[in-house]
Amino acid sequence: MDLPGQLSSLLRAGAVLTGDDMSAYLQDWWGRQTGSALCVTLPKTPEDVAAIVRACADAGHAIVPQGGRTGLTGAGVPGAGDRPPVILSLSQMRRIRKIDAINGSIDVDAGCVLSDVQSAAICVNRLFPVSLGAEGSCQIGGIISTNAGGTNVLRYGTTRENVLGLEVVLPDGTIWNGMKSLRKDNAGYALRHMFIGAEGTLGIITGAVLKLHPLPTAHATAWVGVSDPELALRLLNRLQSCCGERLTTFELMNAEQLEGVIAYRPTVPSPIDAAWHLLIELADISGPELLSEMLLASLEAAMSAGEILDAAIAQNGTQRDNFRALRHGTADANRHIGHVLSADISVSVSSVPRFLTAASAAVRTLYPEAQIVVVSHMGDGNVHFAVRFSHGDWGSYDDPAGTVIAIRTIVNDCADALGGSFSAEHGIGRKLIDELRKRTDQAGYQSMHRLKDAFDPRGIMNPGCVLGEQDQVS
Amino acid sequence: MDLPGQLSSLLRAGAVLTGDDMSAYLQDWWGRQTGSALCVTLPKTPEDVAAIVRACADAGHAIVPQGGRTGLTGAGVPGAGDRPPVILSLSQMRRIRKIDAINGSIDVDAGCVLSDVQSAAICVNRLFPVSLGAEGSCQIGGIISTNAGGTNVLRYGTTRENVLGLEVVLPDGTIWNGMKSLRKDNAGYALRHMFIGAEGTLGIITGAVLKLHPLPTAHATAWVGVSDPELALRLLNRLQSCCGERLTTFELMNAEQLEGVIAYRPTVPSPIDAAWHLLIELADISGPELLSEMLLASLEAAMSAGEILDAAIAQNGTQRDNFRALRHGTADANRHIGHVLSADISVSVSSVPRFLTAASAAVRTLYPEAQIVVVSHMGDGNVHFAVRFSHGDWGSYDDPAGTVIAIRTIVNDCADALGGSFSAEHGIGRKLIDELRKRTDQAGYQSMHRLKDAFDPRGIMNPGCVLGEQDQVS
Repeated sequence: MDLPGQLSSLLRAGAVLTGDDMSAYLQDWWGRQTGSALCVTLPKTPEDVAAIVRACADAGHAIVPQGGRTGLTGAGVPGAGDRPPVILSLSQMRRIRKIDAINGSIDVDAGCVLSDVQSAAICVNRLFPVSLGAEGSCQIGGIISTNAGGTNVLRYGTTRENVLGLEVVLPDGTIWNGMKSLRKDNAGYALRHMFIGAEGTLGIITGAVLKLHPLPTAHATAWVGVSDPELALRLLNRLQSCCGERLTTFELMNAEQLEGVIAYRPTVPSPIDAAWHLLIELADISGPELLSEMLLASLEAAMSAGEILDAAIAQNGTQRDNFRALRHGTADANRHIGHVLSADISVSVSSVPRFLTAASAAVRTLYPEAQIVVVSHMGDGNVHFAVRFSHGDWGSYDDPAGTVIAIRTIVNDCADALGGSFSAEHGIGRKLIDELRKRTDQAGYQSMHRLKDAFDPRGIMNPGCVLGEQDQVS
Repeated sequence: MDLPGQLSSLLRAGAVLTGDDMSAYLQDWWGRQTGSALCVTLPKTPEDVAAIVRACADAGHAIVPQGGRTGLTGAGVPGAGDRPPVILSLSQMRRIRKIDAINGSIDVDAGCVLSDVQSAAICVNRLFPVSLGAEGSCQIGGIISTNAGGTNVLRYGTTRENVLGLEVVLPDGTIWNGMKSLRKDNAGYALRHMFIGAEGTLGIITGAVLKLHPLPTAHATAWVGVSDPELALRLLNRLQSCCGERLTTFELMNAEQLEGVIAYRPTVPSPIDAAWHLLIELADISGPELLSEMLLASLEAAMSAGEILDAAIAQNGTQRDNFRALRHGTADANRHIGHVLSADISVSVSSVPRFLTAASAAVRTLYPEAQIVVVSHMGDGNVHFAVRFSHGDWGSYDDPAGTVIAIRTIVNDCADALGGSFSAEHGIGRKLIDELRKRTDQAGYQSMHRLKDAFDPRGIMNPGCVLGEQDQVS
């Protein structure tokens, strides 16, 4: 029997798709199809996943684990290759297994959608803090496998910091049960951290125990205009000194980015006229008045010190939603505008202004016509640095692909020079494997290979992702 | 040339110790010597460390990396064996390399003493939150290698959550430079997490970038008496709902433990008479009066609800120090009293009362004469569960070693039954390798071996620690 037939016999009816039924599973977030698959499998349980992996392992056949397909570097969809892989979609595994408010933990299937987990936490008066544009469709297994960031990292860390335990099907088809709900556990190596951020190349996450936090019920939100990022940095420092952990969000964008959002969503007005804009949010367990006073006092002091041009504090929920919509609308707006090269770099928070100055100057030297579009999770040092050309059409360049690579190199070099990273929150996927090879210290790169070879010696787990195609794939 | 001679030729004069000069380096925290060493090396730089490792690797000779020797499971001192290892002490590497207050990061040598790092952070108005009894002598490399916990985990996480980057000499003598100061970095596998908590068995940490937090300047501290742990849990839930992240410390001990501390440090009086005692602390960036009011209001509400018997809020710094001294004095008091079997288990926070009931009943059934001494980081689910016999002298038992093992098994079985861990914060070392083998899910245990074999195929890095003696050591 061929492999799809064999897999069908292992699973319930309708759990293996082939032909045109696969089309949705082959497209990435941009709606592009970059490769093909032998079949798509839709397991319901960890045991189903293990059975699929064992069958593929026996056949030496590659597997691409797939979540909500919202990743931006192509880890969850197949690349081009001679031997199309089996897609293993976790989308049918979306049970919330257990929730323990006092312990601050929730046990979920890997296919749960992020926003469903957020809602379940709120029902027991707790917060699951990972929040990002794709939260309505991205899945828990996906955000763990890419160690997703988002807009709350400043206060709550990345996804990694919010995972207590994992259940993983290893490349040999055995199930590792690491579903611990513990805040402290030093019983041997911390295996879960190997799988977090590994983009499905070391095993398939089927379940997770996530950390919940006290639910803030008081918020204070402001939109602030500044003349340059250096002054934004001073404001950040001021807010951290005055407000401590209450500071949840500190997001920077330039006027070009804001214009793009408003052009795409003209119903939301720009609150302030400035070269650089900040969305700032404080949150606390209680005391909304105190929180607003604290934010107001800090912003007044910043105004007196000449750090900021103007500020608007949201007076009600609608205003707050409007401010947030301006920030959260960036990804959709940029996708809509299209032809935007985007780098996802990080540097130390204190180096963000220096990075912006250096990268802008370097790009403009080579491409004076370039428009630079910046949106940055400044509070955690992550900058999405995009370059756009007014005519928009790459076809007018002699070598569009070469131009993309040239600009990416310039921008990532600037991050490197400041001890930064060329991949802050989007991961490597299939798109940045050359950058990883080029920019990782040699001992580190060899160690990554050592890890991959130890856990997936035949290279069947998401080959072509992170470390590139494995030689061992038969 | 023999290996000590060869190492001497690689290092500065006086950097290799032999004979009686080694004695201090062979003793653990209890002052016991459990094994011997070929020599002790005292490198000054990562390059020194790399040179020592290369020489040992060439000779196939085992290395025991050593920090402040405050570990409680023997990872940092040699065990017994036919071929004494080379001790590599990081104690001469104690430079603070860099500090960046705005980024909230500090770069240090692995040999820096924890309290020196805490002080350096305070100098720039920041907090390094890891705090534990041994902070005056334990070293950064050691607390990272054991993923130390302590009394602030409830709010700030374990050491792991406070490490941004690492520099590690790998078992082949190459240096991995992972000294990144980034809050977000998804460029490939998160190698640092492999080495954190690995107890020196995968490589030697020579430097680290640590995360700093806003420095709380307001504190409110209370000593609270409760009649049983179930009511303590209700109080914890109440405080988390009312105070959110301000709740920094929630430590439980029973009257037997408190009596032991007071007997050892009679200058500090017991604030309250109760079967169970709690040290509770709130901290905030500012507003000590608000914080005291918040704590008072919560405790008054708890009193009205019948959750607590009595409470004393510290009225000044001396009182606060006295309350803290009662908690921090437990380790020294228990060491002084001696003959105390101590388990370091964790369960979900909500299961702490159930664990205490089950473990106490199980021990008392077999040993009715046992005195049970409990001190617990209840806020993070970690319980130090000790058993003492009034006559103190193990010699009076037919089989003292067997009794130790029997009690440990009973207590750890109770943790297991609740999905807990037999090693919450002390690690495995040389003391708990059989427990790890016995209590780890098979796929997980095999994965640990796979990791060890991939990074240290010859088993020269701290053999006999975590996974037990490696067959491969030549």
